[in-house]
Amino acid sequence: MQLKIEVDLDYHFVEETDVLLAIEVAQLADQLLGEDLLSVAGSGPLRPIGAEDGIGRRTWMRAQGPCRISYRASLVVDRPAVAIAGLPASNLPDLPAVVVPYLWPSRYCEGDRFEAFVEKTFGSLQGGAKIEAMADWIRHEMDYVIGSSDASTTAVDAFLSRRGVCRDFAHLMATFSRAAGIPARLVSAYAWGLKPPDFHAVVEVWLDGGWHLVDPTGLAPIEGLARICVGRDATDIAFMTIFGVGTMRAQSVQVARLDG
Amino acid sequence: MQLKIEVDLDYHFVEETDVLLAIEVAQLADQLLGEDLLSVAGSGPLRPIGAEDGIGRRTWMRAQGPCRISYRASLVVDRPAVAIAGLPASNLPDLPAVVVPYLWPSRYCEGDRFEAFVEKTFGSLQGGAKIEAMADWIRHEMDYVIGSSDASTTAVDAFLSRRGVCRDFAHLMATFSRAAGIPARLVSAYAWGLKPPDFHAVVEVWLDGGWHLVDPTGLAPIEGLARICVGRDATDIAFMTIFGVGTMRAQSVQVARLDG
Amino acid sequence: MQLKIEVDLDYHFVEETDVLLAIEVAQLADQLLGEDLLSVAGSGPLRPIGAEDGIGRRTWMRAQGPCRISYRASLVVDRPAVAIAGLPASNLPDLPAVVVPYLWPSRYCEGDRFEAFVEKTFGSLQGGAKIEAMADWIRHEMDYVIGSSDASTTAVDAFLSRRGVCRDFAHLMATFSRAAGIPARLVSAYAWGLKPPDFHAVVEVWLDGGWHLVDPTGLAPIEGLARICVGRDATDIAFMTIFGVGTMRAQSVQVARLDG
Amino acid sequence: MQLKIEVDLDYHFVEETDVLLAIEVAQLADQLLGEDLLSVAGSGPLRPIGAEDGIGRRTWMRAQGPCRISYRASLVVDRPAVAIAGLPASNLPDLPAVVVPYLWPSRYCEGDRFEAFVEKTFGSLQGGAKIEAMADWIRHEMDYVIGSSDASTTAVDAFLSRRGVCRDFAHLMATFSRAAGIPARLVSAYAWGLKPPDFHAVVEVWLDGGWHLVDPTGLAPIEGLARICVGRDATDIAFMTIFGVGTMRAQSVQVARLDG
Repeated sequence: MQLKIEVDLDYHFVEETDVLLAIEVAQLADQLLGEDLLSVAGSGPLRPIGAEDGIGRRTWMRAQGPCRISYRASLVVDRPAVAIAGLPASNLPDLPAVVVPYLWPSRYCEGDRFEAFVEKTFGSLQGGAKIEAMADWIRHEMDYVIGSSDASTTAVDAFLSRRGVCRDFAHLMATFSRAAGIPARLVSAYAWGLKPPDFHAVVEVWLDGGWHLVDPTGLAPIEGLARICVGRDATDIAFMTIFGVGTMRAQSVQVARLDG
Repeated sequence: MQLKIEVDLDYHFVEETDVLLAIEVAQLADQLLGEDLLSVAGSGPLRPIGAEDGIGRRTWMRAQGPCRISYRASLVVDRPAVAIAGLPASNLPDLPAVVVPYLWPSRYCEGDRFEAFVEKTFGSLQGGAKIEAMADWIRHEMDYVIGSSDASTTAVDAFLSRRGVCRDFAHLMATFSRAAGIPARLVSAYAWGLKPPDFHAVVEVWLDGGWHLVDPTGLAPIEGLARICVGRDATDIAFMTIFGVGTMRAQSVQVARLDG
Repeated sequence: MQLKIEVDLDYHFVEETDVLLAIEVAQLADQLLGEDLLSVAGSGPLRPIGAEDGIGRRTWMRAQGPCRISYRASLVVDRPAVAIAGLPASNLPDLPAVVVPYLWPSRYCEGDRFEAFVEKTFGSLQGGAKIEAMADWIRHEMDYVIGSSDASTTAVDAFLSRRGVCRDFAHLMATFSRAAGIPARLVSAYAWGLKPPDFHAVVEVWLDGGWHLVDPTGLAPIEGLARICVGRDATDIAFMTIFGVGTMRAQSVQVARLDG
Repeated sequence: MQLKIEVDLDYHFVEETDVLLAIEVAQLADQLLGEDLLSVAGSGPLRPIGAEDGIGRRTWMRAQGPCRISYRASLVVDRPAVAIAGLPASNLPDLPAVVVPYLWPSRYCEGDRFEAFVEKTFGSLQGGAKIEAMADWIRHEMDYVIGSSDASTTAVDAFLSRRGVCRDFAHLMATFSRAAGIPARLVSAYAWGLKPPDFHAVVEVWLDGGWHLVDPTGLAPIEGLARICVGRDATDIAFMTIFGVGTMRAQSVQVARLDG
């Protein structure tokens, strides 16, 4: 699938403010980046850094006053559909060192508090079949309600309120998976077919020796996801982290398909 | 300082259980490992892995029944005393990619909830002086009470109860630091002079372009710490993570000084 | 049912300590108290007070050193079995003023956080049928595990851990009921047939213009409950509230049936 | 002080909705109610009930569509200024049964979690002097920020965020007081001199055998408070509890002084 991505963010910062951007598409085997360009009007020089885990790029900027951020990218996503349900879980001792931390609970994914629920609800299933049952549970039991959560909402909060957005659905998915001893991480992505278009959050689970994408919202096809970066939860993958106060004035994300 | 470390752990696992050990001293510039040996009676073959961040070693084992773990190491710690108070904070855009995640809140360090307290209490100070004031606050306001917390205790819990052990003191230190925009990570260590001898948890903060050790408990000298591994909070650096049920029957940690 | 109750509590208080006891059987229409006697060796004069709500008796004592509390009572419980499932909920405007507070969330019953779960899970049912479905859910989804909770465990905690004792089962029952707009209160009681014998916690729900007993644990028959007092949650009905530090040395609760 | 109160609430309910109002001034010894009138356009018949504790009045209504609630009252407040700092705490065994529950933690006042903080911070003071120090602490450490909290904010939340409105200040005051073993309850009131005029929340603490008003916000004089009702926390004293969905379209509270 050939995708064209256009992002325009219009912000305002009263004081000089450090901002960490994570909006650039990652160069990965299943998503071949053509060319892309991040440009910012209203900040000092951009300072690109990699990601902790080697996946994705982040860029520091220091801005004051009006600030317009523009990102353009074209890429080809060539991601074969995988039947998750048939994949076995990996043995724990086979997990690479960089995968191990995705077993742990994190700020917004309190996996340690869900072990009994997960065992009772999904304990009879194994590997990918268990993951699929978790995604089904989330789609069935949770209501997707825009505005129903905020930056402080954790998996426990969402589990109780039975409401959330993609961030919360992904947190629950990762939380359930970790509580079952299956590594899981959050993934930020551009999503072809997502309505309304926006930054999207999905999950990767570690099955059969590799990471596999799961979208517990079911709102966009896996084949049309262009990953930006990965992390333990929403904090790691936020598209913009403002170290101070900023005001959003306009924001537009467009993902167009050029082929098909 | 020349140290000799002797660890003996005596556990019992009813069922076959995967266990992740993190008890081996890390090879680092300021702690020169002589020789060391990890041996386990009662498990299958050990499977050493590195750490996600390249610091420290972890080892998987699969055990059933009685299990005796033994670790012996000798090393020279050559760590100059640093006057933390005089070190400046780094500019955020100068943070390397691998340091950035230590700004974020984690499962047991809810830095996002302490920003107002930290600003009100330490806001007039900068860099290392701010860090020292935080460590002083912790030593003064918190009671070190063995048995007063458990594996689920977070920084919020400890802040309210005003009680804890090294794990909780370190969580508070890292939480305050992150809430002030200074990266901080948990460090597990062997500590010469710690009474009673045990695994210890301390903190590293990122100041002036590098990591610097801080022990908010003040129970052992920085110069005698032999670091094992680092992470976002206690989960990352646990000396033993049991994926199932295990019973501790005896546990001994000895840190002897061979010189001086 | 004719019951004989014998309670012996053996405590020790290092310093002079105020203690509030709530262990005396309430005089109520469906439980006719014969004679009873509370006696304490090792305290100053007892100071009986009523209960806030007019149900039950509480007694202040001030003790230091060894303290033996003895309570003996005989009573006849004449409580007809009620088919809860057939009872309608009351209209809200018909609730008496003293019943209204049992709609609100309390310290250990966060009813406000369970509204979505309760609506999704029990929303198709009404009145007593809804209450019975809630009790069934609790009996089916929760494990009764002695020692799995403590005095700080809330309904949210128990809901996540899927474990608890009578206190937690009762908290969940009251929480679900309040989240559905049906008043519910905690009840402490002596329970004939409870094994092992102990103080018991159950629930009363307001249906069809009156309070009706429900025991979500199913561990003892409603017909053999001798109520002590009622309240919003476990704090209100604790059999002993110690304003300081006390050590339990022995504790015995016996409920014998004299007829039948 | 002679006060005239005018309240106008303009709401809309899409569906038929039960609403509990608590906006009528209580008839109490230190506030002599002249005449008052509650009238509602857009509901069925009003159903007045008392309060659980005998203080204050509540009124049920059932409304659908536009609903205008009007309340007019005139009263004389004759409340001598009391020097709180000089009042002794009461002995626990002297507390009346109806006062005892105000020692317990409640949904939004987790007194049980603040015992260590309160002991460390105020432990050297007694009775009214302790209460005054708590109120001073709150005025000094908390920022009064309209919009900074919502209906789910607890004392723990406010303590961490160091921000809140009158509800949060009152919750903290009651929480600290209970943690010190001094009964405290929330009080809703009309407050002469409050800017902007609104429903106000303050606290009563039990000292020297009686209830005494404390306003931790310091925003309005005690002498000009017209109490509405009392309770364990904000839930008990909400001026309007909507059992369903309602939209506020306009709301006006006016408190005028007729003498002086």
